Amino acid sequence: MGEVSPEVAEKVRKSFAAQSLMHTFGAELLRVEAGRVEIAAPILATALQQHGYAHAGLTFALGDSAAGYAALTVMPAEAEVLTVEIKINLLAPAAGDRLVATGHVVKAGRRIVVVKAEVSALQDGAARAVAILQGTMIPVTAG
Amino acid sequence: MGEVSPEVAEKVRKSFAAQSLMHTFGAELLRVEAGRVEIAAPILATALQQHGYAHAGLTFALGDSAAGYAALTVMPAEAEVLTVEIKINLLAPAAGDRLVATGHVVKAGRRIVVVKAEVSALQDGAARAVAILQGTMIPVTAG
Amino acid sequence: MGEVSPEVAEKVRKSFAAQSLMHTFGAELLRVEAGRVEIAAPILATALQQHGYAHAGLTFALGDSAAGYAALTVMPAEAEVLTVEIKINLLAPAAGDRLVATGHVVKAGRRIVVVKAEVSALQDGAARAVAILQGTMIPVTAG
Amino acid sequence: MGEVSPEVAEKVRKSFAAQSLMHTFGAELLRVEAGRVEIAAPILATALQQHGYAHAGLTFALGDSAAGYAALTVMPAEAEVLTVEIKINLLAPAAGDRLVATGHVVKAGRRIVVVKAEVSALQDGAARAVAILQGTMIPVTAG
Repeated sequence: MGEVSPEVAEKVRKSFAAQSLMHTFGAELLRVEAGRVEIAAPILATALQQHGYAHAGLTFALGDSAAGYAALTVMPAEAEVLTVEIKINLLAPAAGDRLVATGHVVKAGRRIVVVKAEVSALQDGAARAVAILQGTMIPVTAG
Repeated sequence: MGEVSPEVAEKVRKSFAAQSLMHTFGAELLRVEAGRVEIAAPILATALQQHGYAHAGLTFALGDSAAGYAALTVMPAEAEVLTVEIKINLLAPAAGDRLVATGHVVKAGRRIVVVKAEVSALQDGAARAVAILQGTMIPVTAG
Repeated sequence: MGEVSPEVAEKVRKSFAAQSLMHTFGAELLRVEAGRVEIAAPILATALQQHGYAHAGLTFALGDSAAGYAALTVMPAEAEVLTVEIKINLLAPAAGDRLVATGHVVKAGRRIVVVKAEVSALQDGAARAVAILQGTMIPVTAG
Repeated sequence: MGEVSPEVAEKVRKSFAAQSLMHTFGAELLRVEAGRVEIAAPILATALQQHGYAHAGLTFALGDSAAGYAALTVMPAEAEVLTVEIKINLLAPAAGDRLVATGHVVKAGRRIVVVKAEVSALQDGAARAVAILQGTMIPVTAG
């Protein structure tokens, strides 16, 4: 995992900023490295499930986005990224103030990028793993 | 697939109403049958990805909820439902005005309920399949 | 689901015959249709898990192969098929004499083919669903 | 990851030995630690796919077994282990002489154990990652 070029960092930030759902969730891009991206979001009162924990839809959205942008950092400059499929295992109730998702590239192929992600919930300064994801991303080029 | 008792229908509606994320998404419970639940939501300007389609986080949240509530209809009266894990394959960009998710019970065990769901996007009156999900739900009882 | 051309049927049969594991399992190709393939195998004494049921490895191998060959029937003539990923949910112990796996194409894209499969166990003439699979196949061309 | 008691090690070895498919594949239990199990097998001429690589059914069977036995080491003494579901992403063709699968416990709950596994192929002394798996195991007790 090393640094990415300013162009790649900018491409990821621009794409992230264009996702209205990330704004709705108050999410922010914490870190963009080669093959590794971190995204965090507060657990807003508007994103809960029936017991007051973060909704799996929020946990999934952050994990999928972190994994997808991790994949984007290893794709050709002109490519954008698309999730083909992804699986999530929920490990614990997402209680707390904030979620942090870390996406990693497991295998960067020309046609397929295999990814994983972990999502943790922060409560009173302590982090607890709440989900792991494993999935497949592909590069897409416009036109 | 048959009718559910008024108690089960009420339990599902109450749980659904308690999910703030479903409100945020403008989602509504369309249909509750034994082992089959339908949820719909508009594709709001606040729930998009970077190309203007519905975000996979929205598609996932609806599919997961439809599958989870389908499982809840076949669980004991005192049980609530928890997603253990779920996998989504995205089939097409979720373009349009509205998403409809249908969850089904594949196998109702005492400890484990296996589920699947399909999500379609409605555009100009036509429906297009945008995702399929396959997962595992468990009953949880308070106390 | 319709008929396939003799060329496609022949391509699938040739590929299947070249899989030594299918011979080891005594598996046979029952049916090859456009987007739908059926494979069956006896539950041999050499393919069991610790309680005497068919091993999940056998169930998986049949389901994955049926799904992969279903995908192959909708790919270009020169392509071969590769499993990118696949998920299996086990529904019941695979007890009986014989397993039958049916693979289906859910969405045939140019780059990605989304598939599913069901596996049933036959015991005393009755069939019982033992597994469902959902996955992703890609076409590969030599050279 | 630490040592397991002789009783747990013996329980795993006995269960492994009772799986006829593991014998058919020539598989052996390399290592049993608390929450971590390693299984290896030669890539036999009887376990290949159509291009002469190890069949995904073999890769899956080893990864699933390593993950399942890793889960078994953290379950109560009287419990046996059952795979609820598992997903595999294939990373590269499984070329070589031998596969090694390592299973890990990610989260050990009372009702659900979340696991992952990696499978590598050894060729001319070098190891290459060929698959990763993520899944769910449950304890089952007879009677």
